[in-house]
Amino acid sequence: MKKLSRTSPSKIVFLIMDGLGGLPHPKTGKTELDSARKPSLNRIAKDSLCGLIDPVNPGITPGSAPGHLAIFGYDPAEYNIGRGVVEALGIDLALKPDDIAARGNFCTVDNEGIITDRRAGRISTEKSTGLCRALNKIAINGAEISVLPVKEHRFVFILRGEALSPELADSDPQQAGLAPKEIEALSPQAQRTAEIANEFVSQARSLLRGETPANMVLLRGFSRRPDIPPIPEIYKLKPAAIATYPMYRGLARLVGMQVLPGGESIAEQLDNLHRYYADYDFFFVHFKTTDARGEDGDFWAKVQAIEELDNALPSLLSLDPEVLIITGDHSTPATLAMHSWHPVPFMLKSKWCRPDNVAEFSEQACLSGGMGRFPATEIMPLAMANALKLDKFGA
Amino acid sequence: MKKLSRTSPSKIVFLIMDGLGGLPHPKTGKTELDSARKPSLNRIAKDSLCGLIDPVNPGITPGSAPGHLAIFGYDPAEYNIGRGVVEALGIDLALKPDDIAARGNFCTVDNEGIITDRRAGRISTEKSTGLCRALNKIAINGAEISVLPVKEHRFVFILRGEALSPELADSDPQQAGLAPKEIEALSPQAQRTAEIANEFVSQARSLLRGETPANMVLLRGFSRRPDIPPIPEIYKLKPAAIATYPMYRGLARLVGMQVLPGGESIAEQLDNLHRYYADYDFFFVHFKTTDARGEDGDFWAKVQAIEELDNALPSLLSLDPEVLIITGDHSTPATLAMHSWHPVPFMLKSKWCRPDNVAEFSEQACLSGGMGRFPATEIMPLAMANALKLDKFGA
Repeated sequence: MKKLSRTSPSKIVFLIMDGLGGLPHPKTGKTELDSARKPSLNRIAKDSLCGLIDPVNPGITPGSAPGHLAIFGYDPAEYNIGRGVVEALGIDLALKPDDIAARGNFCTVDNEGIITDRRAGRISTEKSTGLCRALNKIAINGAEISVLPVKEHRFVFILRGEALSPELADSDPQQAGLAPKEIEALSPQAQRTAEIANEFVSQARSLLRGETPANMVLLRGFSRRPDIPPIPEIYKLKPAAIATYPMYRGLARLVGMQVLPGGESIAEQLDNLHRYYADYDFFFVHFKTTDARGEDGDFWAKVQAIEELDNALPSLLSLDPEVLIITGDHSTPATLAMHSWHPVPFMLKSKWCRPDNVAEFSEQACLSGGMGRFPATEIMPLAMANALKLDKFGA
Repeated sequence: MKKLSRTSPSKIVFLIMDGLGGLPHPKTGKTELDSARKPSLNRIAKDSLCGLIDPVNPGITPGSAPGHLAIFGYDPAEYNIGRGVVEALGIDLALKPDDIAARGNFCTVDNEGIITDRRAGRISTEKSTGLCRALNKIAINGAEISVLPVKEHRFVFILRGEALSPELADSDPQQAGLAPKEIEALSPQAQRTAEIANEFVSQARSLLRGETPANMVLLRGFSRRPDIPPIPEIYKLKPAAIATYPMYRGLARLVGMQVLPGGESIAEQLDNLHRYYADYDFFFVHFKTTDARGEDGDFWAKVQAIEELDNALPSLLSLDPEVLIITGDHSTPATLAMHSWHPVPFMLKSKWCRPDNVAEFSEQACLSGGMGRFPATEIMPLAMANALKLDKFGA
């Protein structure tokens, strides 16, 4: 791609509806997309090349990071991003290459040390910020420690120092009713790092004793930032991200995008798209609500989220980007109330896209689209081609 | 897959209709599946995710071993199972890692040594057992030899010894009208092994002189058992096989399945499925008749085999497994009277499968199914996902 890509004035917009794909409602037999009133999405589908993407592989349920990496053209099996790194990037933390990051939760344990709430009743960000300040006073020989609040019960734990290793198992057992686990070294080189991390947890336990409900911490996803070739380098694009959630801003930054102001709603995000439209040639606009309502298991709220996005679309369409792609990073069917492995509706609108017979944006309709079912990693080359930003391959 | 798989009580049933795919009858333009009365298969298709599998690659006609390996999630190009090994496994032979196995046929040769019947008129198993006993007396320096009857004219030939090699060409020319071939070493290290094998054939010819019709032997598929990571290890499943033919039981054992009693008909096989249903979480039920009648070139007998299976299906459906997959290991169109390269109808029924618009189980209908055309190696991850036995990939 590096050899074929070229810069041109044409604009590419990726509108990613997080967790877009769904499953039929048991009563109606219709998915969330089927059930939504969505005239703009349908109109775009009519002029688009449609299909269904497999974010990773058939049967594989992607986390948000691999789902987005695939859409941005990276093989998610090759570039594995740890949870800690994703969390750190989301709060604008400039991770150094050797920094080790973990995702932290404030949690509640009982008198026997058994977890009763993995999220400490989702304490307020203000409360969590104060507790992080206290934990930041912990000093351990051989490493510099930072504890940074994210949102509610979530924080980032950073270790910086010589000869440390991220090969550590989680302390978070991922369910209540168990005690937090001792952090295990997964390789001999990580022995010292494991000791430091366990010492931190032990001191944190003492410091938080007496707090209610956040009287303990859980750590998971120890990781270093992976070495990802940035989008400007591969595609000669000037990319920007408009996302409301920290994690997606972090992901965008990781692949070399400029992070622009987000906004409180999709309408505000699209206002920002207008504002910065002249300054970049690639935009990643991230819409979170479809996933959030899917995870809640609230079918009709997810339908409503789709309708909210559909209502905002005329603003985007008025910009008439040379290439507009609308898809999702994975499915989050409300009936499952979690991410799933099901392929995700996709459409690409451009002057040069060879439209198919699909006249509706839905799982079923996209199946017979011009792209059929295909891997998400093929989206970037398609976008570049339709923006006439790719040279011919070979003589 | 090893990292993502988890154990759960849900059940997965693979019903493999051997040689399932077909071609249109020249008179009616309908395939075997099109022509069969199959209300149960059609009803399942209506609730299923359908598609067409390529067992190996488009254009490649698979043998039974690669066809099944692909369905069980193994890349058949990576795990090559010799014919000798498959035959040995099928008679419960505990092959040691260094044992060399070949498939043997008793055959008929004329006075000039030309093969007149590659199967010696399919002599009875009793007869063949007696002949094998005689051949077992052959002793050659440098190797221990075993000759074990399989069924009718078939036997297994085993070589055990120091510094032997399975890199040998077949003696079986695969057609009548030719003489059996000298067994050739395919590498310098196999020279001594080739001499031993040829000496065996020569002594067998002498011993069988005067027998009618089994007066000679043919050997093919010299091989050692490959080192395949077993299904319980990769998928954390407790798998069992219900197959009537030895070869499929052998294959199942090779990938770590428990082999259960088979039965004389698909109805009896499904009785055994009921009997053992509580004890395992993955079942491979193998239906041979579709392939056998296809190989016979008997179009209407293959249609009847499909109808026989369809009649037996209510028994399977009454178990209501969390995941039911019905497909084949390859096509065996009766018009070709042999295995073929054509993709094979596939359907997966589960509570979470996102059904498509396919309402009939046939080659044509499955083409527009939700899976479209896809590699058979993707079946296992799909089955695991639909059984909710796979964790999320990545943060």
